[in-house]
Amino acid sequence: MNKNKNLSKDDVSLDNVIIPPEKLVFIPLGGATGVGMNFFLYGYKGKWLVVDCGIGFPGDGLPGVDLLLPNPAFIAKQKKNIVGLVITHAHEDHIGGVAYLWQDLQCPIYVTPFANELLEGKLSEAGLLGRAEVHVVEQDSIIDLNPFEVQFISMNHSLPEPNALAIRTDQGLVVHTGDWKFDTNPIIGEKTDFKALKKLGDEGVLALVSDSTNVFGQKSDKTEMDVRQSLIELVGQYPGKQIAVGCFASNVARMESIYEAAKANGREVCLMGRSLWRIDGAARATGYFKNMPDFLTEEEAMERPIGSVLYICTGSQGEPFSALNNLAAINPNKGSVIFGPDDVVIFSSRVIPGNEKSIALLQKKLKAKGIKIITDKDALVHVSGHYAGEDLKKMYELLRPKISLPVHGEAMELMAHVELALKYGAQFAFALEDGEVIELDDTPQIIGEVYAGILAVDGKRILGLDAEVIKKRRKMMEGGTMVATVVVGKKGNVLGEPQLSAFGLLDPTSEDKDILCQSIIEAVAELDKDKRTQDEIVQNTIKSTIRKFLSEKYGKKPLIDVHLVRI
Amino acid sequence: MNKNKNLSKDDVSLDNVIIPPEKLVFIPLGGATGVGMNFFLYGYKGKWLVVDCGIGFPGDGLPGVDLLLPNPAFIAKQKKNIVGLVITHAHEDHIGGVAYLWQDLQCPIYVTPFANELLEGKLSEAGLLGRAEVHVVEQDSIIDLNPFEVQFISMNHSLPEPNALAIRTDQGLVVHTGDWKFDTNPIIGEKTDFKALKKLGDEGVLALVSDSTNVFGQKSDKTEMDVRQSLIELVGQYPGKQIAVGCFASNVARMESIYEAAKANGREVCLMGRSLWRIDGAARATGYFKNMPDFLTEEEAMERPIGSVLYICTGSQGEPFSALNNLAAINPNKGSVIFGPDDVVIFSSRVIPGNEKSIALLQKKLKAKGIKIITDKDALVHVSGHYAGEDLKKMYELLRPKISLPVHGEAMELMAHVELALKYGAQFAFALEDGEVIELDDTPQIIGEVYAGILAVDGKRILGLDAEVIKKRRKMMEGGTMVATVVVGKKGNVLGEPQLSAFGLLDPTSEDKDILCQSIIEAVAELDKDKRTQDEIVQNTIKSTIRKFLSEKYGKKPLIDVHLVRI
Repeated sequence: MNKNKNLSKDDVSLDNVIIPPEKLVFIPLGGATGVGMNFFLYGYKGKWLVVDCGIGFPGDGLPGVDLLLPNPAFIAKQKKNIVGLVITHAHEDHIGGVAYLWQDLQCPIYVTPFANELLEGKLSEAGLLGRAEVHVVEQDSIIDLNPFEVQFISMNHSLPEPNALAIRTDQGLVVHTGDWKFDTNPIIGEKTDFKALKKLGDEGVLALVSDSTNVFGQKSDKTEMDVRQSLIELVGQYPGKQIAVGCFASNVARMESIYEAAKANGREVCLMGRSLWRIDGAARATGYFKNMPDFLTEEEAMERPIGSVLYICTGSQGEPFSALNNLAAINPNKGSVIFGPDDVVIFSSRVIPGNEKSIALLQKKLKAKGIKIITDKDALVHVSGHYAGEDLKKMYELLRPKISLPVHGEAMELMAHVELALKYGAQFAFALEDGEVIELDDTPQIIGEVYAGILAVDGKRILGLDAEVIKKRRKMMEGGTMVATVVVGKKGNVLGEPQLSAFGLLDPTSEDKDILCQSIIEAVAELDKDKRTQDEIVQNTIKSTIRKFLSEKYGKKPLIDVHLVRI
Repeated sequence: MNKNKNLSKDDVSLDNVIIPPEKLVFIPLGGATGVGMNFFLYGYKGKWLVVDCGIGFPGDGLPGVDLLLPNPAFIAKQKKNIVGLVITHAHEDHIGGVAYLWQDLQCPIYVTPFANELLEGKLSEAGLLGRAEVHVVEQDSIIDLNPFEVQFISMNHSLPEPNALAIRTDQGLVVHTGDWKFDTNPIIGEKTDFKALKKLGDEGVLALVSDSTNVFGQKSDKTEMDVRQSLIELVGQYPGKQIAVGCFASNVARMESIYEAAKANGREVCLMGRSLWRIDGAARATGYFKNMPDFLTEEEAMERPIGSVLYICTGSQGEPFSALNNLAAINPNKGSVIFGPDDVVIFSSRVIPGNEKSIALLQKKLKAKGIKIITDKDALVHVSGHYAGEDLKKMYELLRPKISLPVHGEAMELMAHVELALKYGAQFAFALEDGEVIELDDTPQIIGEVYAGILAVDGKRILGLDAEVIKKRRKMMEGGTMVATVVVGKKGNVLGEPQLSAFGLLDPTSEDKDILCQSIIEAVAELDKDKRTQDEIVQNTIKSTIRKFLSEKYGKKPLIDVHLVRI
């Protein structure tokens, strides 16, 4: 998968820091700001502990780019000194980069059972299964990765087995939370173990590295169990109607809640969407869903009477090829379930910032079919997997860290988290940028920075974000591309008609093609005889003729190439 | 400006309805769903009243497209029967399309003074000043557009002179609100005239066409005057520091509030950003800002002592070439104001959905420079221009409409508004799609639909959204474009090296170009002799060689053209 990786020149090294081996340091190589690409380093005695290795999503500004990865260049140079890669939990922004970047790390991976099930599939696709050394660690156990000792601590989040890591060194204890919330009734997994957290606090926490996602959110007093009750009631309100529930595929507790809502109302459950089946497999393989029958496939569900099935669907964020979008389509895929007027779609998920428009479009299409839409504005159909409000305060009260290092949030959230941390008793708080190196001791300080870039998975290649092809693609999507092939004789007389390819600029039938061809012929003919014999001059003349024409008539600045054929 | 308009075939007509002249009908041709492109028709006795003519913004899915317009094809066919275009207020989504579409309407325009100032600039740019007949109407006056009578009613919003329209016919009275809120202390313009609204209610309102933007919002009890007080205090907290305030350019009351905050703290005010100057001109020309001195230009401000100026900036939504983005830039434009550590930027605006990422990026850049950021999460620095919470209920209580037609909101907001309307006493409520035709009488019904499409302003052209060039552009931004010029002899032997242009695909120095050229030569050589003499076969062979190579090696599906030169 990595064969075509074209690291950019930048990573040859912007590192401007000497890292003292006797100090414990922390470096976010990805995931300090924003959500995605979590990739954190702890360094001590010349050894490195890597925490998480996730992907990011490119958004609309990077056409053709499938995924983003943290650039591992800095740590790849020291791969022999990596004692291990520890995964906090199985969300893509924490685990999705492993199969892409393991070649650059070549270290043992430590992971709890549920995440391992998903990781195996990724490693297998990348041909790394058996090559990458994977250790499956039970939750709440301790592993020795000298000079680090890492204790897994069960937290609550929106999937099974979210772990905080207590990272011990003889320089002190760091708690790295991963994504977390407190939930007194989480359904799947343990309730928050406040005693264990308090014990860490009593032991003395040098630094806390914590999620900042929901720092502005209001604390909800609702638990996953409340959502379950609400779903049971809600499904009961639409007897005889088809009902689909959109939810995040990895939300195993929610899948179970939806199953309970179906069961309580005499419905069977059908999964629609590949990622739901993948999670179902991982969940069952690791002991979840024990008392639940197998879910129905779409084919099986269609043989059941109308109104006797509850569908769980991917696509609650409006993803184009998802199950919900197919339900909403004017022409759904052949042989798929059809929803119509008065059927119901429940959005059991939040709106991830940036997805507002695609979700609105999906809902508009559903509504156009007369389908009733229920969201968290209408009923209790979702609780967040991230803490909000008072929980953060409680975390600081339990752990009493000296240093706070907020990560995993937008700039404003990190800044707010810094202020809260100081208010809640931390002596120091830093919102680091990716690549910044901080010494963790009684007088923590940022001592410099190392190169922390972003890589783009682009089809089968991995490119630096500053790669020429990506820059060009941005330009061509605004202005189109134009290639002219012009055949000229030895004396520079144009032979025949120029051939033009104008992608994203002219319709194939446009008369302007003929007009432009004529202009090109005239422009070359007007050149002095001796200039006409020089290829570069002829090419530039043609280019500027094209540029002028398209700018004046269309207001466009395309990328232009001229293929000159001299006979 | 319209010369290149290429209407798509669709608008030849999908109209499937006969509109009975004795009925009063309403048709949203744009702006029913979503925010933008407001363009509404009222039909009666074969005559048409047009309300608003706005633009929309294309978002990232439409590369190269500058603006969106409602497709006027349906009404353009009947332009002789248009009695007038009435503008509710000067926001771009209500007035921005006039200069583009007036040629298709060729009717008199009715507009209040502030909007007229801005409209004049637009008509002038489009060469329509003097050609388009514009009537400047005082607020609260009544105009006769037989068979319609239109009364302008002052509302509150986030710019001067927002008007609701009371549209009277002998079939009944329709109230078309435009964008609105109630504000008991709006600073600019009148307080809401509850008496006038109640009087309309007493007269009997057949239908209410109302804004749905904030239907889920919580009612704030804060007024523009409260924001002013808060800004005065806030600016006082940073003596000696440079302070910039980002706000929407058209928010004239906010500009005045910011001026008051500056004045109370001994600062002068400088405008940064062209649209602010444009609004300033329109405001002063129509009698606003009477007691305020002229604003400073950036040049003038830079001659003042540090800390004695308050800057009002465009770009609170993270727009790339705006004043705030320049403040945040690592290399600001030469000769521009420089902000540094401990200077302050206040975001006196909301986050428009869809802009989360660009705003986060802007704030990250500001933060990286050590600039303090203050948003509506930190202090009262903004109130919305749209109603929320109980105001809608109050509106229904005042007007008591029989029919409610929510517009100007996302699908979910329209649906919620429909439910609220019925709860608040409307007998009928419809969330229409653009193009749907509804009869307004005691038994309102949707009687069919007319063509309502979207046009894209693309450089100097106006295209249908389904235009081939736009479809192609989406494809090329994913996969790139490849043009190969191959010279072959009469017998089909390839002469010389093929020339390749691979935009967004290969770096100019890539060795893969040579490998691909070799593959092309071989593929042509392997063809049977007689096939090599047929241009189409040779071209297709080359195309499929390129397609296979790029798919296998790069995972990409570019647009491909082959220029065959036969000698």
